[in-house]
Order: sequence, then C-alpha cells, then structure tokens
Amino acid sequence: MLRTSRIDVPLLRKAVRAGPPTLVRRMLGKLGPTELALVLLELPPPEAKAIVTHLCADRPRLTLTIRAIPDELFAGVAAQLGEAVLARALGALDADDAVRVLLLLDEQEQQRVLTLAGDDLGLQLRRLLRYAPESAGRHMNPRFLAVSPQATVGEAIRAVRQAGADVPLFYLYVVEDDGQLVGVTSLGKLVKAADATLVSKIMEPDVIAVAAHADQEEVARVVSQRNLLAVPVVDEGRLLGVVTIDDVIGVLEREATEDMYNMAGLSEGDRVFSPPHRSLLKRLPWNMLNLVTSILAAIVVGLFEHTIAQLVVLATFMPVVAGIGGNTGNQTLTVIIRGITLGELEFSSGLRALLKEVMVGISVGIILGTVVGLVAFVWKGNAMLGLVIGCAIIANLFVAALVGTAIPLTLKRLGLDPALGGSILVTMCTDVFGFLSFLGLATLFMHYLL
Amino acid sequence: MLRTSRIDVPLLRKAVRAGPPTLVRRMLGKLGPTELALVLLELPPPEAKAIVTHLCADRPRLTLTIRAIPDELFAGVAAQLGEAVLARALGALDADDAVRVLLLLDEQEQQRVLTLAGDDLGLQLRRLLRYAPESAGRHMNPRFLAVSPQATVGEAIRAVRQAGADVPLFYLYVVEDDGQLVGVTSLGKLVKAADATLVSKIMEPDVIAVAAHADQEEVARVVSQRNLLAVPVVDEGRLLGVVTIDDVIGVLEREATEDMYNMAGLSEGDRVFSPPHRSLLKRLPWNMLNLVTSILAAIVVGLFEHTIAQLVVLATFMPVVAGIGGNTGNQTLTVIIRGITLGELEFSSGLRALLKEVMVGISVGIILGTVVGLVAFVWKGNAMLGLVIGCAIIANLFVAALVGTAIPLTLKRLGLDPALGGSILVTMCTDVFGFLSFLGLATLFMHYLL
Repeated sequence: MLRTSRIDVPLLRKAVRAGPPTLVRRMLGKLGPTELALVLLELPPPEAKAIVTHLCADRPRLTLTIRAIPDELFAGVAAQLGEAVLARALGALDADDAVRVLLLLDEQEQQRVLTLAGDDLGLQLRRLLRYAPESAGRHMNPRFLAVSPQATVGEAIRAVRQAGADVPLFYLYVVEDDGQLVGVTSLGKLVKAADATLVSKIMEPDVIAVAAHADQEEVARVVSQRNLLAVPVVDEGRLLGVVTIDDVIGVLEREATEDMYNMAGLSEGDRVFSPPHRSLLKRLPWNMLNLVTSILAAIVVGLFEHTIAQLVVLATFMPVVAGIGGNTGNQTLTVIIRGITLGELEFSSGLRALLKEVMVGISVGIILGTVVGLVAFVWKGNAMLGLVIGCAIIANLFVAALVGTAIPLTLKRLGLDPALGGSILVTMCTDVFGFLSFLGLATLFMHYLL
Repeated sequence: MLRTSRIDVPLLRKAVRAGPPTLVRRMLGKLGPTELALVLLELPPPEAKAIVTHLCADRPRLTLTIRAIPDELFAGVAAQLGEAVLARALGALDADDAVRVLLLLDEQEQQRVLTLAGDDLGLQLRRLLRYAPESAGRHMNPRFLAVSPQATVGEAIRAVRQAGADVPLFYLYVVEDDGQLVGVTSLGKLVKAADATLVSKIMEPDVIAVAAHADQEEVARVVSQRNLLAVPVVDEGRLLGVVTIDDVIGVLEREATEDMYNMAGLSEGDRVFSPPHRSLLKRLPWNMLNLVTSILAAIVVGLFEHTIAQLVVLATFMPVVAGIGGNTGNQTLTVIIRGITLGELEFSSGLRALLKEVMVGISVGIILGTVVGLVAFVWKGNAMLGLVIGCAIIANLFVAALVGTAIPLTLKRLGLDPALGGSILVTMCTDVFGFLSFLGLATLFMHYLL
C-alpha cells in the first residue's frame, strides 16, 4: 500500500521501535511531506506516536507533514496519535497551523487537547478559534516581530536575533506603545541600514493591512496582487498578527477547488480518498437538484409528444440541440467565473462581458446551426428540418451566452458564490429552451416538414 | 470607462501633462496595480509614456502594474508606450518579469526592444529566452545572493548590504568557486549568528533545487509543498538563478485556469476581455468537436427511430437519462482532475479511486433510477417504462463513473493534460451509452411496454 522509493518502510519501522534517535531522524529526513503523512496513516499507533515525537524537534518538517495530511484523513491520524501526542504536536506548530488541526477534531476532543496543551498555548488558541472560519483572524499567526518607532536599527536587529523560531521574519513591524501599527520594514532593509539610524527613518509608513474579520479570499488577493510575503492583521489599527504567504497559497488552492466543485455540483470534503458513503451523501443533494432540472426538460419534451409522433426524426436531433447548447453555455460560464475569481472583470464590465458573450454565442450559433442544418438536410433529405434545427441552435446559443454570463454575475450580486451549481443551472436553461425552440418551431412548421 | 474611486483621473492627466513630479508620484501612489494598469490602457500615448517613466523610479510598483495587465491586453499597452519607453521599463524590472513582457511582443518588436535595452541587459534576456516556455529556466531570476563556504557571517552580511535592489534576499546561497551549489541559509539565520562564524557552519547542506528544464508546475509544487520562499535553479549542480514565490503564485493560478479551461473545452487566451473575434476563433475547434460528439449521440438515437415511433413517451425521458449521466460523470471527472492536480492521488491509487467512484456511481444510480422509475410510473401509468428507465440510469451511472475516472487517468498516463476536453468526452460517453441502454432495453421489452 505504502509507495515510497526513498526508504525501506520495514527498516524505518525497525528503527523506530529499537534504533538510535539519530538513525530515525536521518531516515525521516529522506521522506517528503506526503510520504511522511502516508507513513503516519499506515503505521500502527505506537510507531506513529514515536515518529511525531521525533518530528516535534523539527518544526518545519512537522508543519509540512501535518499540512500534507488531507483534512478528510486527519481523523485517522489523530486516532493513531492519541490526545497527548497531538497536544504536544500543537505546541510545536505555528498557532495558525495548530488552529487548523484543532478544527479537524470534534468539539470534545478539541477541548481535551486544548487542556492537555497547557494554559498559555490553550488560551492563545482559544482566542484564535473565536474568529470566524475563513476570516483573516483565523489564519493569522499571533506572533510577530515589532519594535517602537523610536528604536534604532541596531536595537531592531537585536530583536530579530532574540526572536523565537515560531516568529515569521519576513517583515519587522513598527508599533506605537498602544499597539497602533505605524510602519513596516524588511529584514533586508534593516541589514542594509546603519546601526544608529532610527527605524522610523527607514520604515514604510503606508502599511497595507487587513482587518481581522476580512474574508480569507480578500487576504489572499492582497498578498498575491501586492506581492507581499506577509500581511499584518489589525483591529482598529492595532496589530494582532500576520498572515504569511504559505497560508495564502493554501487559500488560493482551496478557492480554486471551491470554484470547480461548485460549478460541477460537488461539496467540500468529497475527495478522491473520501470513503464512498461520505462522497455519496455529499453528492446526493446535487444529484437530486439535477434530477429536478432534467425532469423539467422532460416535461417540455412531453408537451410536444404529438409533434414527435408525427415526425420521429425530431427525437434523433434532440441530443444535438441540447449537447451544443450545454457545451457553449458552460464555456461562457467558465470564462466568467474564472474572470470574477482572477479580478479580470475589472478590465471589462458586467454589461460589456454580457454583450461580448452574446456576440460570440450568436456567431457560434450561426456557424454550428448552418453545419447541423446541412447535416440534417443531407442525412434525412429534409431541407425544412435543416432550417428548423439551424434556427433552434442559433436561438439556443443566444440563450446559452445570456445565462452563462447572467447566472454567475447575479449570484455574485446576491453575495453568493458565483460558481454555485453553475453547470446544472446553465444546462437546465439550455435544455429547456433548446427543446422548446426546436420542438416549438417544428410544431409551427409541421405542415412544411412532412 | 475608467472606474477608480481613489483619485480624479482628469486631475491626474493634468498633473502628468504639467504638474511637478512629486505631485504625479503622490497621485500614482494612491492607485492599486489594477487601477494603474487601467490608466495605462486608457490614457493617450504621451501621458501613458510619462506615467511609465515615473514608475521606472519605483521598481515594485512598476512590477505590480505590468503584472496586473492581462497578457491579452498587453499589445495595446505596448503600442501606447512605444519601444523606447518599453526598453526602459524592461531595465527597471526583474529579469523574469522582463522576459514575460518580451514574450508578449511579436518577434521583430522583441528584437528591436532588446537592442534598445542595451548590451548587458539584452544579452541576459536573450539567454533566458533560450529556455523552453513553462520551464524553471524561463521563470528564474538570474540574480541571486551567493557566497563561498569559506566566508564568515560578517562577510555574508556585507554581501547582503551591497546587493542591488533587483536581488531577491530570501535566501543566501553557498556556492563553490566552480559554481556548484553546496548550501543555503536564510537572512534570519545570518542575522542571528555571530559575525565570525563560518557560513558553512550555519548553512543547510541538503538544498532543495530544481533543474533548469523542469516544468513550471513541478517548480510550483516544490515551493508550495516544501514551504519555500524561493527555489534555486541548477544545471548539473551549478546555480543559475532562483524562482521566487511570487512567480509560483502566478503559476498556480495559471494552472488552475488551465484545468478549468481544458475541462470546459476552452483555450488559453480566451478571457472575459478578449475581443469577440478572438474568443470565437479559440472556441470554434472545441465547438466542432462537441458537434461531432453530439451527432454521434444523434446517430445512436437514429438507430431506434422505429422504437420511438412505437412509444413516443421514450423521447420525453431521453433528456432525463442524458442529463443525469452527464452531471454525475462530470462530478467524478472534477474530483479526479482536482485530485491529480493537488497530488491527492498519492493518498489513494488509480484503481482504488476507480473502484470507489464506481461504487458511488452505482449507488447514486440505484437511488436516482428508483426515483425516476417511480416518476415515470406515476406520470405515465406504465410500470414497465419505469423499470426500463430505472435500469438504464443505473447502467449509465456505472459508465459515467468509469469514464469520469478513466479518461483523466489515461490522458495523464499518455503525458497529456488530464483535463483536456474532459467534459466533452465524458458527456459524449454518457449520452451515447445512456441512449443505447435506454432505447435498447425499450426495444427488447417493447412487447411489455405497450
């Protein structure tokens, strides 16, 4: 089951059980974070506990290993480790990583681990847990490097030297006695300046900061667009902590997953390795929604059973009208949703985007409508059938462009995720309208079709 | 057209034309990168030129502004600026950003701008251009901070002090005289160590590095999973440059866009703000593919025209069979594609993932098949019709799970992008098999259906 080419797992197990600590550490050092996570998942509890205890001495490696464990599999690892070892691992992680671990436990387990973690750490973590999920406060590291504006560069460098291993050293923040954030400078600038210079002389006074209640997506956007390594989190100007770029990368990846999942009709926590019953429960509500939209399309077709009975070849072309409509609608939907996420709509506007998509949709419609019309004419020898299907396709691709643009923009205006159920809703519209126009036109012109 | 709340654009234009430089810089300082990019796109050439000339003195802001201009709109900005101002801007950017700008110009323009940029810069950029697109070499900054293993910490700190503004200061690399990379240390560790210590004593000798020809996706994966701020690029152990985390965020965002685009049948360079004719040309090949797959589905239905003529209600339920199959197939496809991109398949295996998806697919099939069967029975009063449609849905969702998993895994094994055309291919399979099983079963049991 366990695939790792870099070390021999039975040998590692032997070393963990009886070998000298240096050997174990050297063997662990050869494994990447994913492999270490797999090892923790697969080995029996005593060995998993021993490995985490070794990793507690190597903060970066422990952090990477814990991060590499998918959320959905964490309960398994937690069970292997037991609460005492978990509490010890929390103390060896940055506070934001520790909070993320805690949130994967159930309420009671959380409280017990927090108690085992000791008073100081427990208090600190309980404070962070109070911020809303997906807020800047939840992601921040409450440890940071700060000096007073009256400090000299030499004093600031001494502060850097004394900082613990858990303090991010990307920037040095300049903070008044009352906690107000008044400036920022980088370690690079500090090293380059003369020792006697006042920090206030080299600091950047216009600090880009985010509020503690700001959404994680906004935080990620600020860090990536402003090219920062960390962004300070403030409450009414008071510095509370920093969100660092490694967290931002995680947020950006989660947001991309969310967009793709929402479009396809999937929920968080339904992953490749989730147990089947979990995936089933997460998917069923979406499948039920899709069932209802499909039956809506069936009802529309049902209205025209009499028409189809007169000319069965109409049934043959139904999948073409629906297939082309669904695909072009989803193309538009994807362009708009990705455009919203990447902030590209700044370079266009909702209305301009709508007009453009409608122009493209009608153009694609004219081309595909002509081709399908000709195919129908040549295949079935019925020119009028070709005309009806061609017109239905043009009309349907106009609708596809319209709904593919309007649905995400409307969801966004309503404060919802623009991708929510996108594909299901767009396909519903193109199915319903496609059948309505195709079979409706056929009914109107039945006289010429026969 | 230009929406910015933070400054008055007519006032900015007036300042650019006649105001003092300090006023212009203060006004520009109030704008975010997206707003500055919009300003460059919208203002007449002389004013755009003047603004870029001002920005050349503010490297970070110039970099952010250039990055904020979407690739597809860059030609417009380049035309505003003219080659001389462009060449000057190149000199004020990091080499990797300069290369990215050059690649947005056509061949001839590229050569002219490189000539205008001067011998040193021209040579350096021409060297980077030789690396393959999407390779580590193309993304690297050829400037880095390096010292010999015999240097002391004090000497290393002096090297940091003398480094130019264009040298990334995340890590200090330790390099032998022949260019071999032998170690790495951080600025933080340097500041914390005593001046007389040898750099070789505090350096980390196991350097995580990437080859110059490595794919950008691999580079991004290494930086994000190993929690680095920069990764050294080497050729046979010799240090050539560094890829920094800001580039990695860009790569991760482009890869997410690529996955979503490939799934929906979209090509790069088809964005919200692309002109309609460009989007049309990019989408048509995909639409043509979709046209062919839709006609395949139509051919299958065409085989059963006789059956449908006997029982028109079959046509009514065709959209339900196709709709449910397409949606569940795309759910599976999305889970697998995202799983591949995020490396989650390490926690499962291809076969295990396939078995799981098939189990989920059959379970969803049994539930939805039963519901649709009952709906058909109640609506049309035909129990046998309910049975046939129920069985067809179960069989189709088995196929949906199979192809939703197998298509991306096969594409990956073939060395192609696992998302390529995914949605179109999966929908083709579920349409074709769905109609085949539904209408085929109906033909077999027609005797009982009537």
